[in-house]
Amino acid sequence: MSRQPSHPTREQIELPMVLECLSDPTRLAIVYNLARYDQATELRCGDFYGLSGKSNLAYHFAKLREAGLIQTRCVGTARFMRLRRADLDARFPGLLDAVLKSAAGDAERLELVDYDVVSAR
Amino acid sequence: MSRQPSHPTREQIELPMVLECLSDPTRLAIVYNLARYDQATELRCGDFYGLSGKSNLAYHFAKLREAGLIQTRCVGTARFMRLRRADLDARFPGLLDAVLKSAAGDAERLELVDYDVVSAR
Repeated sequence: MSRQPSHPTREQIELPMVLECLSDPTRLAIVYNLARYDQATELRCGDFYGLSGKSNLAYHFAKLREAGLIQTRCVGTARFMRLRRADLDARFPGLLDAVLKSAAGDAERLELVDYDVVSAR
Repeated sequence: MSRQPSHPTREQIELPMVLECLSDPTRLAIVYNLARYDQATELRCGDFYGLSGKSNLAYHFAKLREAGLIQTRCVGTARFMRLRRADLDARFPGLLDAVLKSAAGDAERLELVDYDVVSAR
């Protein structure tokens, strides 16, 4: 069993940190793509290599985890990420949907690539 | 007639800049208080002196103006600010309301003081 990274509880998720996380185009693209799947679906770091370099992605995943946006599960050296949609919707009703809808409307401008990560496996 | 500061057009308002602006507690408090009034209501820098120092506020107002969140009108040395609610709602439907609702739910934790600025004049 790998050592698991720490996560804030639902109640510890803070609005400023969530908004700060989503204000970064790379992190917004990660969340946008995670949100395209069922919230139980876990994606791997490697699924996002088209988006940025490996160490840069690791940094962004850590920021997203610390802010409470994603849940990270480690198995050996692999990391599996999923969106904490239920927690976010409970803490800030309508916020994630509004951000995702706004992002979708500006997808081209934000260069929000859709990664067909699950079907590509 | 005073020289007026520049503002982005509605179409030029960008999601990452808006989210980045709102991720700062002082700026969120400014927007939260501006949103309590009709969108034609203009507040002055001095209305927010309880929130932060003068030069700090000037910095935050400039960030909010550049991101397209507020409209600033100069009359002599006075500045009058109003929220660009119609522009924000047109560009990102539901986003501002979701952020404000989330902020209101966490008002105490975020130390979102309500300024009775208009009635105080």
